[in-house]
Amino acid sequence: MPDRHMITGGAGFVAATLARRLIAEGNHVLLIDDLSRGSLANLGDLAGHPRLRFRQIDCADVEALRAATEEWLGTGDHGPDSGGAVVWHLAANSDIPAGIDDPCIDLRRTFLTTFAVLQAMRDLRLRTLHFASSSAIYGDLGDRVAEEDAGPLAPISNYGAMKLASEAQISAAVETFLPRASVFRFPNVVGVPATHGVILELVRKLRADPAVLDVLGDGTQRKPYLHVEELVDAMLFVAARVPGRHVVCNIGPEDDGVTVREIAEAVRDRVSPGAVIRYGPEPRGWVGDVPCFRYSVTRLRDFGWSPRLGSAAAILRAVDEIAGQENA
Amino acid sequence: MPDRHMITGGAGFVAATLARRLIAEGNHVLLIDDLSRGSLANLGDLAGHPRLRFRQIDCADVEALRAATEEWLGTGDHGPDSGGAVVWHLAANSDIPAGIDDPCIDLRRTFLTTFAVLQAMRDLRLRTLHFASSSAIYGDLGDRVAEEDAGPLAPISNYGAMKLASEAQISAAVETFLPRASVFRFPNVVGVPATHGVILELVRKLRADPAVLDVLGDGTQRKPYLHVEELVDAMLFVAARVPGRHVVCNIGPEDDGVTVREIAEAVRDRVSPGAVIRYGPEPRGWVGDVPCFRYSVTRLRDFGWSPRLGSAAAILRAVDEIAGQENA
Repeated sequence: MPDRHMITGGAGFVAATLARRLIAEGNHVLLIDDLSRGSLANLGDLAGHPRLRFRQIDCADVEALRAATEEWLGTGDHGPDSGGAVVWHLAANSDIPAGIDDPCIDLRRTFLTTFAVLQAMRDLRLRTLHFASSSAIYGDLGDRVAEEDAGPLAPISNYGAMKLASEAQISAAVETFLPRASVFRFPNVVGVPATHGVILELVRKLRADPAVLDVLGDGTQRKPYLHVEELVDAMLFVAARVPGRHVVCNIGPEDDGVTVREIAEAVRDRVSPGAVIRYGPEPRGWVGDVPCFRYSVTRLRDFGWSPRLGSAAAILRAVDEIAGQENA
Repeated sequence: MPDRHMITGGAGFVAATLARRLIAEGNHVLLIDDLSRGSLANLGDLAGHPRLRFRQIDCADVEALRAATEEWLGTGDHGPDSGGAVVWHLAANSDIPAGIDDPCIDLRRTFLTTFAVLQAMRDLRLRTLHFASSSAIYGDLGDRVAEEDAGPLAPISNYGAMKLASEAQISAAVETFLPRASVFRFPNVVGVPATHGVILELVRKLRADPAVLDVLGDGTQRKPYLHVEELVDAMLFVAARVPGRHVVCNIGPEDDGVTVREIAEAVRDRVSPGAVIRYGPEPRGWVGDVPCFRYSVTRLRDFGWSPRLGSAAAILRAVDEIAGQENA
């Protein structure tokens, strides 16, 4: 592994865990974030580490991104020619309903950030990109299992559309200038620092009203969940073993997931055991939500990686962590 | 069919034929084009037709696009509430190598035009979109046949990436606000008014030097070709029969195509029979070019449409037409 890593969306949920791992392994890390949704507080005691740099930049701004990266590459104890940096492109709009209300949000934060990252990598001759894609690119597959090579790909949210659009750009970049890219299709990821997602939402609702927990959708939505520590572990594992120029890999647990009902009950049991849970009438929580989802992780297993926690165990651990984070 | 149709890329190659058909069928047509590559000359005697309006607008400019469309919808012999217009989104950068040199070209002209069209349709509550996608979204499939529902989709040019990215946006739009969309994946399309493409290039080379014809690539590239008159016929046929909210349909001939060698020979025979043809060493003409391509048209045939001309006959007809256009 090279010793320099740049992470976009560097003040976000996944980046906090990734940066911690990379720093612990002795690497130098540059975090880029516009702080529109991320926060330096997510970095905890990592902020101020001597091998960590943070720059507040809109990652969709090619000029600013290139300048900041170039400056970082030329400073500190690395010479400017010591081989570039590995780029982890995690910046994206994580608020899916917001992107449905205003498509410009996903355009700018999810798609144009990828465009800018690729432009900057091309200009600075950076050779390795790891990209956080999403199961949302598959759309609603019904009973079919999401396999990396399957089609059709028909995303049903702007978030999924802009992630698929980003994958398309990366595919063309690999053909034209980028030596190495891995595309990781994330499942639902849980853990701390929680910035969004169903567990955080439910914990906060119960803190506001400990007697009643209103749940979006009828609670039957079933999805696979992975703990963020394991997600980062899987990415680092595959990144060290990418066989060719371009790999696309689902990351997820090996089970079919848990239902919203199970999550709601786990939150209730941890935060307010006497609360009543009330469900909505529809299977979907919001437009663009995929009610059920089954994920193939055969490729990931073929790489040699398997999670230690299944979906249910990941949820229980995350509920406990997030309740702690929220002092609930 | 409704009587009003808006065509983006309205001064381009395919739009000229589409507009002629729509006008001939009694419809009113608004053409939008920034004239960056298209030309009013492509419209020939259609320009000035009383049911045809042309507006020079950058289709990626949402405000301008919406304003021009709204104004057109409110004028003439239609009331403003008479049911909107059908949108044919054909605007795109058609110069694939240019887009590889500068990805901003494909970003703006191919991807952001789709974004703007969808925004304008949402704002104006227009209900039907027909989109010109491309076989380039499939990337290099090797021996596999390109079927609409197959994966993976790994475009190898920015052009293909931005077309796939546009398809992704449309998929999400159908889920969230757009009642009807058809996505037509075009093969190589030939005919007049020719504005780009291999035949025009070869005709012009032979006019410049009637003794020698230099061909990019070794001549073995084989692709399916359709005549533009038949492409437009197929689109109108399918558009009138779309069964659901969202259809994706390859449009192409029923054969495996013709080679660049056959095209070069047809051009030589028509323009300068004594010329020597010289080929390059590599199968690919340029980075991002797909050397061989096989196209499934089962879905198109299931709709009930078949072309009258195969690839070879389409090429012969187009060579003759383009030689005439260029006075060669």
